[in-house]
Amino acid sequence: MAKKQKTFRPKARIPRGFRDRLGAEIAAERAMLAKISAVYEAHGFDALETPAFEYTDALGKFLPDVDRPNAGVFSLQDDDEQWMSLRYDLTAPLARFVAENFDALPKPFRRYAVGPVWRNEKPGPGRYRQFTQCDADTVGAPSPHADAEMAMLFADVMEAAGIARGDYVIRVNDRRLLTGLLETTGLAGEGETETAQRLTVLRALDKLDRLGEAGVRALLGPGRKDESGDFTDGAGLVPEQIDRVMTFVTSTAETNAETCTRLAAFFASSEIGMAGVEDMGAIAAQAAALGYAEDRIQIDLSIIRGLEYYTGPVFEADILWQPEQDGRPIRLGSVGGGGRYDGLVKRFKGVEVPAVGISVGVSRLLAALEFKTDAFRAGSGPVIVLALEKDRMADYHAMAGELRAAGLRAEVYLGGSNFAKQLKYADKRAAPVAIIQGSDEREKGEVTIKDLVLGAELSKDIEDNKAWREDQPAQFTVKRGDLVDAVKKTLARHAK
Amino acid sequence: MAKKQKTFRPKARIPRGFRDRLGAEIAAERAMLAKISAVYEAHGFDALETPAFEYTDALGKFLPDVDRPNAGVFSLQDDDEQWMSLRYDLTAPLARFVAENFDALPKPFRRYAVGPVWRNEKPGPGRYRQFTQCDADTVGAPSPHADAEMAMLFADVMEAAGIARGDYVIRVNDRRLLTGLLETTGLAGEGETETAQRLTVLRALDKLDRLGEAGVRALLGPGRKDESGDFTDGAGLVPEQIDRVMTFVTSTAETNAETCTRLAAFFASSEIGMAGVEDMGAIAAQAAALGYAEDRIQIDLSIIRGLEYYTGPVFEADILWQPEQDGRPIRLGSVGGGGRYDGLVKRFKGVEVPAVGISVGVSRLLAALEFKTDAFRAGSGPVIVLALEKDRMADYHAMAGELRAAGLRAEVYLGGSNFAKQLKYADKRAAPVAIIQGSDEREKGEVTIKDLVLGAELSKDIEDNKAWREDQPAQFTVKRGDLVDAVKKTLARHAK
Repeated sequence: MAKKQKTFRPKARIPRGFRDRLGAEIAAERAMLAKISAVYEAHGFDALETPAFEYTDALGKFLPDVDRPNAGVFSLQDDDEQWMSLRYDLTAPLARFVAENFDALPKPFRRYAVGPVWRNEKPGPGRYRQFTQCDADTVGAPSPHADAEMAMLFADVMEAAGIARGDYVIRVNDRRLLTGLLETTGLAGEGETETAQRLTVLRALDKLDRLGEAGVRALLGPGRKDESGDFTDGAGLVPEQIDRVMTFVTSTAETNAETCTRLAAFFASSEIGMAGVEDMGAIAAQAAALGYAEDRIQIDLSIIRGLEYYTGPVFEADILWQPEQDGRPIRLGSVGGGGRYDGLVKRFKGVEVPAVGISVGVSRLLAALEFKTDAFRAGSGPVIVLALEKDRMADYHAMAGELRAAGLRAEVYLGGSNFAKQLKYADKRAAPVAIIQGSDEREKGEVTIKDLVLGAELSKDIEDNKAWREDQPAQFTVKRGDLVDAVKKTLARHAK
Repeated sequence: MAKKQKTFRPKARIPRGFRDRLGAEIAAERAMLAKISAVYEAHGFDALETPAFEYTDALGKFLPDVDRPNAGVFSLQDDDEQWMSLRYDLTAPLARFVAENFDALPKPFRRYAVGPVWRNEKPGPGRYRQFTQCDADTVGAPSPHADAEMAMLFADVMEAAGIARGDYVIRVNDRRLLTGLLETTGLAGEGETETAQRLTVLRALDKLDRLGEAGVRALLGPGRKDESGDFTDGAGLVPEQIDRVMTFVTSTAETNAETCTRLAAFFASSEIGMAGVEDMGAIAAQAAALGYAEDRIQIDLSIIRGLEYYTGPVFEADILWQPEQDGRPIRLGSVGGGGRYDGLVKRFKGVEVPAVGISVGVSRLLAALEFKTDAFRAGSGPVIVLALEKDRMADYHAMAGELRAAGLRAEVYLGGSNFAKQLKYADKRAAPVAIIQGSDEREKGEVTIKDLVLGAELSKDIEDNKAWREDQPAQFTVKRGDLVDAVKKTLARHAK
């Protein structure tokens, strides 16, 4: 007895934590990345593209005594049993590339990279498991000149992307200042409790901007209750320790020179602290000499970034400009960071190779830019040539071809000859103009041009616009030979 | 007794079958893809970006009764036990996207996509497990107008990429002609032997270009011994069958109109064959009406592409131009293909959704273009400003900044003050010019400009160039204020 087999129909769905992106958003990101890449290239950085996969051991993603990759990365075993993982950032592949090609590379090695990275983490609102990074790094240059260049490069990148001077600032701190602070405050112990305490202290410093001095003091001491009543445990420092930490973090002055003077006094007895102070001074001096004043590059002692990772200066690019949404200002915050990480290649080579880099937070910077420009505006689609007579398709394609030759986007509707459906399609495509040639127009050697942007405006506000409406017909007819000119003029009246 | 633990040092190596790419190659590919994308956009296609991962069932990559993904894709199990795979092309994600968003999409839906795809296959020379695809597809347009547009679009893409008219041709065939041929030649049986026989016949047709008629006849019949003595089994057709198949494949005429006339006679008794003939006629007529003659779009009955996949017209873009290498012409062959595949979305929806698309073979087209332009030429790197006096770094950065403001790539050497090392670096970076300001020049308010391209030329051929050498000094000194002008002039003499 033959049993009729049911056809399996998979559900069409995108995997959890990923997303599809269409037209306008891709175009906006692509334009932004092209501008940033141009700045990187102008500064002598060359593009490097590494593959999506790296061997898991090269990424450092095995836990000790465990033979499966650590969480956080997407991993699979190759045919030859070796574990591979998708890159989770662009720096780990750079380290592998530099270690693999060390002798052949020019040194310093200056490369930039743009591309997707993957994180096997819990997705959330605005948190995806695939996103784009855009980095520039200098490998093999130990001097603070390389750090200063990175800070200035970051400022140039922000302005090239479209963030005006004054609307952003590149904040600079140094890992060694923090290490010196912890050491001279009796917080350098190696036990688990001390490590946890250090972390709590650093997290507290990072919140100075948001909680103010009193809030940070509470978090350094017994803990803090926030507005909702939730209690956050503090670091449990004694008052003298709290004072010392607060003296440090409030040493941030209006001028970088003054901050450095204060720091020199503060760290008089700390060797590692003084090493940080000296480099910060060199960075600030170089920036100042090249006209990058405190409105672009500012030492800010509350900046805490990946302390396990960075070994010297750290950078953070902050948007100061606050757009309004529903009458309330929005804090856009950090749109990228970076710093010096001299230990990265060491995993492979056993020796330290100095490196410093920056990474633009692509989606955050793009989100900031979207407050400035409405990329998704009406009329951004192609001109649609309607297909009304079945045997005249070549005529319509010829019209579209002429419009394209004039530099416009244009297509012929290919879904049949229903008039209403075609106009609905033009609307869905955000077409600025539809071209209509039925048999009447054709016999007279004419075409009708329908201004869809104007049409949308008019339909919004019929009463007030009466006079204007009479002046600006949303639909008019021209000689076939004047098609391109007429379309160009129609588009020009909407280009502000 | 404490045992000293040995530090684990992973070997820095790229995973098997993947590759790193640097500067010039990335720039060349990026420029080519930008030109192709511009053609797609001009024709009204919008960019769509889907993630690297799809659910494995959505890709159709489970074998019946097997609960692990089929070979050929990179797959892993997500936290929730669902299998995900990296996309192996850009069409399967399109099908998922269209099925998922069917009602909201404008129809026809015209999208293009550019991005990496992954194949879990055995790598070989020039065969990588990650490569770039660049597709355009129209979904929801069943008419041959949409097919004709794709063929013409393909021709436009070739020319935009830099392949001159006459150096390429878009070949067109139709799956239904082949089905009709097999049916009317007694090769439509459903058994395993018949399926294998059909495959052998189609493979033989595909070789007409290379083996000629006699070679194909041998492969259709008992088999063929090639020049090396290797024997290839034939399809075992009887002489009447061979004659019929050869009549079909040699029906390709110089004009598309003549080919269609021959096909109409050949398929008089085959319904599916006639359906193919009609659409081929419509495509050829539309192309001719729009000036796309046989030098751009040609019906070629020996083109066989993915028959399990395509349901109507198929396209192949071939490079005709044969560059010479070591005195021998090189056949570049196919650089892309496409066709109509009405069944793709059916897997999800249960209904047929018409679709037609093209896919550019990015690495093959790029390889073809590299015979035309030498992208890796000397002098393509940044201008290098030498760092000679430690306390003058800001001066050097100011020079680099001025050069960048004039639209040039420029950087300061950041690896120390050794003069010879800096010139070696400039050479490795393919720098066109080095800028030198030691204390002598500085005191006189001057800079020295070293023309490294000319320097390389001169060192090649010292005797012959004596007079020219005296005219064109490879190194000269100008006033500091004339730096930018002098560098621009130096670069201009190498720009042909």
